[in-house]
Amino acid sequence: MTVTVAVDTTGADLGPAEVAEGAKLAAARADVRIVLFGPEAELRAVVDGVPGVEVVDAPLSIAKAPDPALAVRQHPEASIVRAIRSVSAGDADTFVVAGATGPALAAGLMHVRRAKGIHRPALALPLPTLGDPVTLVDVGANVEARPDHLVQFGFMGAALARTVLGVPRPRVALLSNGEEPTKGTSDVVEVHRLLGERLADHPHIEWVGNVEGNDVASGAADVVVTDGFTGNVTLKVMEGVSQAVVTGVRQAATSNPVAMLGGLLLKPSLNRFKASIDPEASGGAYLLGLKSLGVVPHGRFSREGFARAIVLAAQGHDGRVTDLIHADLEAVGALRRPPASAVAAGDRDRPSE
Amino acid sequence: MTVTVAVDTTGADLGPAEVAEGAKLAAARADVRIVLFGPEAELRAVVDGVPGVEVVDAPLSIAKAPDPALAVRQHPEASIVRAIRSVSAGDADTFVVAGATGPALAAGLMHVRRAKGIHRPALALPLPTLGDPVTLVDVGANVEARPDHLVQFGFMGAALARTVLGVPRPRVALLSNGEEPTKGTSDVVEVHRLLGERLADHPHIEWVGNVEGNDVASGAADVVVTDGFTGNVTLKVMEGVSQAVVTGVRQAATSNPVAMLGGLLLKPSLNRFKASIDPEASGGAYLLGLKSLGVVPHGRFSREGFARAIVLAAQGHDGRVTDLIHADLEAVGALRRPPASAVAAGDRDRPSE
Repeated sequence: MTVTVAVDTTGADLGPAEVAEGAKLAAARADVRIVLFGPEAELRAVVDGVPGVEVVDAPLSIAKAPDPALAVRQHPEASIVRAIRSVSAGDADTFVVAGATGPALAAGLMHVRRAKGIHRPALALPLPTLGDPVTLVDVGANVEARPDHLVQFGFMGAALARTVLGVPRPRVALLSNGEEPTKGTSDVVEVHRLLGERLADHPHIEWVGNVEGNDVASGAADVVVTDGFTGNVTLKVMEGVSQAVVTGVRQAATSNPVAMLGGLLLKPSLNRFKASIDPEASGGAYLLGLKSLGVVPHGRFSREGFARAIVLAAQGHDGRVTDLIHADLEAVGALRRPPASAVAAGDRDRPSE
Repeated sequence: MTVTVAVDTTGADLGPAEVAEGAKLAAARADVRIVLFGPEAELRAVVDGVPGVEVVDAPLSIAKAPDPALAVRQHPEASIVRAIRSVSAGDADTFVVAGATGPALAAGLMHVRRAKGIHRPALALPLPTLGDPVTLVDVGANVEARPDHLVQFGFMGAALARTVLGVPRPRVALLSNGEEPTKGTSDVVEVHRLLGERLADHPHIEWVGNVEGNDVASGAADVVVTDGFTGNVTLKVMEGVSQAVVTGVRQAATSNPVAMLGGLLLKPSLNRFKASIDPEASGGAYLLGLKSLGVVPHGRFSREGFARAIVLAAQGHDGRVTDLIHADLEAVGALRRPPASAVAAGDRDRPSE
């Protein structure tokens, strides 16, 4: 069955039209129905007549709102809110929100809501490395997270790797300051113990144990679990260092005529290397743990990145990533148990604990 | 007055003789007396007859001991313990321990002991960047740290920057997942508030506020404060990403004959760039908050790095980094107050709280 993807277009640095161009590419590549939310005229100028792509006029953007949760409540007509509500209303299967992590998380929690048994949704980001991408989870949805939450993040990341990234038996690791099980904060030590128990002899996940910061880029694991504070710092440090090294190499390659000639000769190979670590390739960050999958491509992505996000969102929905997370957590007894009062009253799956 | 530096030589990857070569270089560069601890014959083969360098036979190494605190207690004759005890005994002013952070910290706490009013010693590491080095503190001495501890780390890093790194008015920042004061864990938010108060209109420290991971490598601050867990992860991620990018560029430069020629022409400039981000330049990690300064150069350093560590340890002692930390903390009321019982009994400055 064709998957319907609701796409908010208003948070892209290059403007809504660039997201529409991405939708056009996605529609040509996959059996997917796409509904674009944003300024109608601007979007129609790109996708009018493109089969499988529809437009809903929702020009108001809250992508840059300083208080996303407040903005989501105050502006039900905002493009992000309308896109995400189309999923909770059953009009779309999954959502893609360009460049607005905070509002996507807030609107997702409010309208799509947490999946049953999930403590907290998390943001999983497949990071480009020299080899296969490494999925870091959480990269910022939960600045503070309890051990039970982190255990669930491990299963979320593994399900994403299997369904969207094509890793049949993902290797899951925990980020710490040493490989020994005793290393880390008391919470990290506890997560190590819990994940180790739950992933021992697991049929389709391999438990790596602790990895250190330098292992993230080296591909020692497919999924690296951490809290949203450390995950955000890790991600930003990676961006900053890559940028600094690239700047340094560029400065070296323009420092004198001989080096300039060398840089010129090397450029095509360096460009291929750069393309091989393209952050747009994996479509962006994945919002996991809601009743539907969401993808948040970075605001600075080009049409290619938005196209990838749309195709991979559909693929994740098709691969039933949400069901897989639930089944895996249930099998190891790591679903959130509803509080006694909620059981008595019938678990209403309340969005806060 | 000539500063005496006690140097443990047994933790270097290249062996004790390499540290001795570093001592020889240091003795030629600075007015410093150096006492080397390690296997006597091996050390004497390098430094015999070199003015200002002495040797103490202490062949036992606990640099790789799995439980550093236990090893320090069990092996008072170990080279690290003897070097550090020579400081507490008043025979040396400051210590340099090659490649053994854990034992240096354990022996430092046990024998040199915490400086008065300090909650916890911390490891400060000046990181090479494209511009001036950025000092990250703590990089692993305290996996868990309270807000009051982190406040002290900020002043420790600033004192190091002033006395050892030559920054007259260091810019101090707090690592978080966003620049706004409300970003971060509740502890980070509290540290932001406390540091902001204590550094407002400070005579010789500038308060930057929060910085994100990408700002570490960009030089947005001279000193970046964080807990030892996040600091260790940050440091390792930086190492891993630099390594991965260098590997990628090297692969690109050997992928075909044209690229190889380009790589060859570019090589001298790239080597100069590499030298400009030399981790050995700053001497290693600085152990701050003890009664004497300690420096821990990385075990994989060469003689040049060990020489830098020795010269900079002497410079830090000469610049009274320990006194400066105390004076700065006292001025803003951020010294640890002894518990009431200790006041009654006379504060014995106990090593644990």
